[in-house]
Amino acid sequence: MKEHLNYAPTPPMGWNSWDCYGATVREDEVKAHADFMADHLLKFGWEYVVVDIQWSEPEAVSTRYNDFFPLHMDEYSRLIPAENRFPSAVDGVGFKALGDYIHAKGLKFGIHIMRGIPRQAVHQNTAIKGTEKRARDIALNNICPWNSDMYGVNVDVPEGQLYYDSLIELYASWGVDFIKVDDIADSKLYHDAHKKEIVAISQAIQKVGRPMILSLSPGPAHLKNGTFFQDHANMWRLTDDFWDHWDALYNMFDRTAEWASFVRPGNWPDCDMLPLGHIGLRAVDGGGGDNWTRFTKDEQYLLMSLWTIFGSPLMFGGTLPDIDDFTLSLLTNESVLQMYREVVERRQVYRDDEWVVWQGYSENDEYVAIFNVSDKDSVVPEEVKKLVEGTALLDLWHGKMFELEDEWEVASHGVLLGKL
Amino acid sequence: MKEHLNYAPTPPMGWNSWDCYGATVREDEVKAHADFMADHLLKFGWEYVVVDIQWSEPEAVSTRYNDFFPLHMDEYSRLIPAENRFPSAVDGVGFKALGDYIHAKGLKFGIHIMRGIPRQAVHQNTAIKGTEKRARDIALNNICPWNSDMYGVNVDVPEGQLYYDSLIELYASWGVDFIKVDDIADSKLYHDAHKKEIVAISQAIQKVGRPMILSLSPGPAHLKNGTFFQDHANMWRLTDDFWDHWDALYNMFDRTAEWASFVRPGNWPDCDMLPLGHIGLRAVDGGGGDNWTRFTKDEQYLLMSLWTIFGSPLMFGGTLPDIDDFTLSLLTNESVLQMYREVVERRQVYRDDEWVVWQGYSENDEYVAIFNVSDKDSVVPEEVKKLVEGTALLDLWHGKMFELEDEWEVASHGVLLGKL
Amino acid sequence: MKEHLNYAPTPPMGWNSWDCYGATVREDEVKAHADFMADHLLKFGWEYVVVDIQWSEPEAVSTRYNDFFPLHMDEYSRLIPAENRFPSAVDGVGFKALGDYIHAKGLKFGIHIMRGIPRQAVHQNTAIKGTEKRARDIALNNICPWNSDMYGVNVDVPEGQLYYDSLIELYASWGVDFIKVDDIADSKLYHDAHKKEIVAISQAIQKVGRPMILSLSPGPAHLKNGTFFQDHANMWRLTDDFWDHWDALYNMFDRTAEWASFVRPGNWPDCDMLPLGHIGLRAVDGGGGDNWTRFTKDEQYLLMSLWTIFGSPLMFGGTLPDIDDFTLSLLTNESVLQMYREVVERRQVYRDDEWVVWQGYSENDEYVAIFNVSDKDSVVPEEVKKLVEGTALLDLWHGKMFELEDEWEVASHGVLLGKL
Amino acid sequence: MKEHLNYAPTPPMGWNSWDCYGATVREDEVKAHADFMADHLLKFGWEYVVVDIQWSEPEAVSTRYNDFFPLHMDEYSRLIPAENRFPSAVDGVGFKALGDYIHAKGLKFGIHIMRGIPRQAVHQNTAIKGTEKRARDIALNNICPWNSDMYGVNVDVPEGQLYYDSLIELYASWGVDFIKVDDIADSKLYHDAHKKEIVAISQAIQKVGRPMILSLSPGPAHLKNGTFFQDHANMWRLTDDFWDHWDALYNMFDRTAEWASFVRPGNWPDCDMLPLGHIGLRAVDGGGGDNWTRFTKDEQYLLMSLWTIFGSPLMFGGTLPDIDDFTLSLLTNESVLQMYREVVERRQVYRDDEWVVWQGYSENDEYVAIFNVSDKDSVVPEEVKKLVEGTALLDLWHGKMFELEDEWEVASHGVLLGKL
Repeated sequence: MKEHLNYAPTPPMGWNSWDCYGATVREDEVKAHADFMADHLLKFGWEYVVVDIQWSEPEAVSTRYNDFFPLHMDEYSRLIPAENRFPSAVDGVGFKALGDYIHAKGLKFGIHIMRGIPRQAVHQNTAIKGTEKRARDIALNNICPWNSDMYGVNVDVPEGQLYYDSLIELYASWGVDFIKVDDIADSKLYHDAHKKEIVAISQAIQKVGRPMILSLSPGPAHLKNGTFFQDHANMWRLTDDFWDHWDALYNMFDRTAEWASFVRPGNWPDCDMLPLGHIGLRAVDGGGGDNWTRFTKDEQYLLMSLWTIFGSPLMFGGTLPDIDDFTLSLLTNESVLQMYREVVERRQVYRDDEWVVWQGYSENDEYVAIFNVSDKDSVVPEEVKKLVEGTALLDLWHGKMFELEDEWEVASHGVLLGKL
Repeated sequence: MKEHLNYAPTPPMGWNSWDCYGATVREDEVKAHADFMADHLLKFGWEYVVVDIQWSEPEAVSTRYNDFFPLHMDEYSRLIPAENRFPSAVDGVGFKALGDYIHAKGLKFGIHIMRGIPRQAVHQNTAIKGTEKRARDIALNNICPWNSDMYGVNVDVPEGQLYYDSLIELYASWGVDFIKVDDIADSKLYHDAHKKEIVAISQAIQKVGRPMILSLSPGPAHLKNGTFFQDHANMWRLTDDFWDHWDALYNMFDRTAEWASFVRPGNWPDCDMLPLGHIGLRAVDGGGGDNWTRFTKDEQYLLMSLWTIFGSPLMFGGTLPDIDDFTLSLLTNESVLQMYREVVERRQVYRDDEWVVWQGYSENDEYVAIFNVSDKDSVVPEEVKKLVEGTALLDLWHGKMFELEDEWEVASHGVLLGKL
Repeated sequence: MKEHLNYAPTPPMGWNSWDCYGATVREDEVKAHADFMADHLLKFGWEYVVVDIQWSEPEAVSTRYNDFFPLHMDEYSRLIPAENRFPSAVDGVGFKALGDYIHAKGLKFGIHIMRGIPRQAVHQNTAIKGTEKRARDIALNNICPWNSDMYGVNVDVPEGQLYYDSLIELYASWGVDFIKVDDIADSKLYHDAHKKEIVAISQAIQKVGRPMILSLSPGPAHLKNGTFFQDHANMWRLTDDFWDHWDALYNMFDRTAEWASFVRPGNWPDCDMLPLGHIGLRAVDGGGGDNWTRFTKDEQYLLMSLWTIFGSPLMFGGTLPDIDDFTLSLLTNESVLQMYREVVERRQVYRDDEWVVWQGYSENDEYVAIFNVSDKDSVVPEEVKKLVEGTALLDLWHGKMFELEDEWEVASHGVLLGKL
Repeated sequence: MKEHLNYAPTPPMGWNSWDCYGATVREDEVKAHADFMADHLLKFGWEYVVVDIQWSEPEAVSTRYNDFFPLHMDEYSRLIPAENRFPSAVDGVGFKALGDYIHAKGLKFGIHIMRGIPRQAVHQNTAIKGTEKRARDIALNNICPWNSDMYGVNVDVPEGQLYYDSLIELYASWGVDFIKVDDIADSKLYHDAHKKEIVAISQAIQKVGRPMILSLSPGPAHLKNGTFFQDHANMWRLTDDFWDHWDALYNMFDRTAEWASFVRPGNWPDCDMLPLGHIGLRAVDGGGGDNWTRFTKDEQYLLMSLWTIFGSPLMFGGTLPDIDDFTLSLLTNESVLQMYREVVERRQVYRDDEWVVWQGYSENDEYVAIFNVSDKDSVVPEEVKKLVEGTALLDLWHGKMFELEDEWEVASHGVLLGKL
């Protein structure tokens, strides 16, 4: 197995700036979230702090991009942080200082990048590190349809690989532990993964030696590429951006059922971020505005149960400093997190229009999640109940026992997540 | 895990009548193949003798069907063997006598069936065992596009399940050990698996208790149904009918790469039969006529290497009584068969236009298959060779050592299947 | 041009039993509608009385079919009327008597048929007129997915053409003037027109000599077959069954815009029936029950304006004997019907999210239809108004003048249909 | 009807530089072709001289483009001729001088442009004529996938329309009579026409008043846009680039059959250029090199017959100064050209695997083209012959009479183009 797949023996857990701040997060906000995570969440396994898209764009205002605007770039055609937003990036140190701050707290540091080379580099024909060739020589006439920053890189020529190597070296020098590469797992325009560039980035990470999680966006990744993703990445997105409405959540039952066979240590197919708590401060894509999640509490239990029994990475999207007790309880339930860490085999075992059932097996325990996907509170029917191979369930969210002879009521859009 | 998935702890191996006889095989021919298998192949693990399609059709002439012709059927709308072709089926004993013959040799007995209920039953509105309802009441207006025998069964009503139960009971009473259900894994007309009927048949097998392998045809099965197939069947076809030409063989590199994550004990995604040796006696689909396989020897090594390192079932398609030494050697190579039985993890690790590389791991050993898919004999290039994590390979087909410092030549359309 | 395309110099107008009675209409009901049409509508151009699907099925109950039920059939595998529903069909005269009744009123008589040969004929292997071959010899293993009556006919053999010839001869002997063939313009299963059978029926009509309109169902017909339909049929459906809800009506703006170039004498692409007035007496497909159309009055004006300026056939779907004044006014507006008969060139000339504009030209006049497809009453904006090449419009529905300097208000889902 | 559709009462005929020179044609070459056309072809109706793609690119070398290379551009973000290739373009006069040269010969002048605004303008954020807004403000993040010169223009803002107006004004000032707009009729990336930009260009042409033919590339145009194209353009391409091999030619029978109903004065669906005579001097796409057409003489007759009876524009692709007699004879057959100009209704009336038949009607004459699309010389079979509604045909290419009682032999891939 490729070395870098070992960097994620259990699914990554962390916070990402997108759901709150879109393309606009600032250094002080990142630090505030790192502080809270170190103080309250690290002991539960939460450790990655990830700066999402367009940290090179000084004028970013929301989740909408300013097309064709100039970005901060170094002499080798590599994007660097915009200093007006990340003051510690002065004097060409890039994200080194912010990385140090995060590491000092026992946490890990992640960044987002777009596949490719900046278009401004190509049209200015700037230099590439380690070669006489220049930006124009390694660029391809392909684009991301929803962001105008980059062209694709031609990795069929050695200088294309060299460019990606130079990027990963720079990130390693900053202390980056996690790289979320966007416009690569499923191109909305070319309708497939950009596989050659995935291989190039994967190889660059192997070469550089520093443990760095490789996370691929956006989804939906295509199932036919499943074994390819397993060989080259730690995470890959199963959906387009996930926001807080039931249709999107319900759709994840399809995605997770299809991908269950691909979950294993080193490979954690990604259900996307948790749009819970306080979100939308400067992100506008979700449609909910600057507000608390539109999911009901039952839907939040359901979401957390599906993500954890499936084995998705958990990237919290809400604000941390002002998190409320209920949301915090979702992130810190020891029984659920134990299941999450220990399950080695999981599977959707039943589905009809009203009920979905998953089973998960760890070395010592068996878990079952009974999801009520209908629009009314209902009692679990006999044919579903008989899938439970035992006499009682311990409800992991509420600590209550459910005996087989009882009626098991599950709320609409809710879940009974139980341990046998 | 469902009980009946335990019936196939290793991939099933056997002989099937299709590639030789199409829809026309006769009892004496089946017995002759059973005799040979018991005498020469059983000790290598070959054990299933499978009677393929249309054993109810007295006038079957090749792989082409006689549309709308009457079939032999019992009082409960169940097809039974045509006695002119299977004389032991007299007096309503069906395949019981043939099954006994095969079992007496230490072998196992398999049959092919079409999804559904005979159209002749529906238009005559005949009886269903165990209910007052009749054929018309459980039939659906859906068909197989390439065979006119059956209508689909409505398993949303209890009598539909009852009909499938009555079929499986009948087959159990005959001593059937292996059921190949056709027009079900991928409908050429409805472009998906007939999932409800798969579940119904799977449940009928679980109920009846007799170990019976469930094999689903035809392919290509859709990857999105991968976990569904894993839960309900032992084998499912990855391609449409496979015959002896390079394009079809080359295409299997795509299929196997995509499906590798789904191979595990109980679940053996099926690359289809081995059209090797003497085939086409009365089958006309392959296009080669009554003749020896059109694959070169190198292509045959390649085929056997891919099927075995992947973990496909092996169903030999050629005649057995007059098999030649070379073909026999392909079926009886102990080193290859040990790899086949023992590998627990396998993966395509490299692919370009000229080379494909697979790795397989058993508890104690590591295997590598280096396929030359180009049109010329070639030396394995350095970038491929460096994938081999060792200093030498033992060529399993020829018993020769390949040292890392040597040049490794592989024939066009050939393979180096090695153990480290 | 093929002779039979001359049978429809202007778009056909009539009544069809489907929207009221589904598969169940009875002879007395047909006659009552013929009586009303002769008395009140014939002078406006309405002349066809069409008996829709399954007049051979004695037990038909609604728009839902009884799968696999026996149908009335003659000795030559041809379906004939069920006498319990059509008492005049006694003694093997078929629809001759009903046809005579309708003709005596100065009207024309139409019937619906399904593509193909009855499955019951094939499984009983009954005779074909004029040949030794039998039903099994000319049947194909293809079906209609929503009705279980027929198999396709193999017109690549002469006896297949002979069967269709024998059908058309029978209908000519009954005095049929209009044939609506179903499951042929767009197969829901095979995703194309059954072209060979269209050609066969078209040729059979040419041979028989009697003027018979050929109408093909269901839609949506594929545009790529446009010239093919022009060469072989008088009408072909642009949509699946059309019922009384706005989404279906709004969708017709796409269909008509794409097909406008194919409208010409002899060829009248078909927007489907007019589900107006009292419908759903025994038809359940529309979802509205036994009730009055769910279209608002404005939507009805819009519908009639689009159908007429485009040149679609007009087949009224509501009951006639109890028709109300408003609905009757839609069918008998002389100004609109003059436009309908005389326009020789028509075109969608503008479309945005709120407005759609069509223009039509007759030899002497110019017409414009301004459709408000938004959800609010609105004033026609300047950029739309400037498309009108004149200084005033005469509103054809209300007889009112619209001067260019005035504000032109159009109701939501309504229309201003004007003559310059 | 829109004014500019009147600019093409008969299908346009001319010469285009692409098949010979790819993106590289020079002024002297254009003039040499204009000289020949004026001297030898103008009297037969050939009049347009069209400079194809990338006349702004000083370093263009073939039909392959130099990605991201700088182009010649004026102060208002508009591309202008590269002076090293077009010396008369000095002092900012653009193509005015070349246009004058061509007009002086009685010919008309055409140019090729790409949809959109130069990417170099957007990344330099240059000026737009008549507004304070700049290139970045009107550009869209969409591209042509096979050429890296341009971004799309946002015509939803007035300044986008203004930019297209400024382009057309410039071309009018140069005396341009014909504009071939590329990457617009069918985007290979977005899989539809760029309709908004087509409307914008169409409107700009109407505004400017100068008669300019609007030709849209590349194909295959989608049939669903047929009426849209009829309303906005004079020509639109039915295929991707057409070169000299039989498969491409055979495919045109599908295209022309589907589009026949859209041919009419002002609208000439475009079968693409005639790759006849000496082609490929510096164009490499066709694959034939610098050589004479790979079509056989029979195939050339067939091609010319299909293009003319269908009514496609004729744009000759070969060199003119060294044209041979046979090729010249294809362009100057008076009988064929009369048919071409006069036919008002045309139609494919028959097709099987060996024969295709078209009929065309002018006011006074009837034409028939019998194409032998099989691989052997054959005699026209009776069922095809009976489509000819007369007793004899005059073969337009060879002036020979074909009597109905004779055997009509047609060469493989050849044609009998006859007048009744």
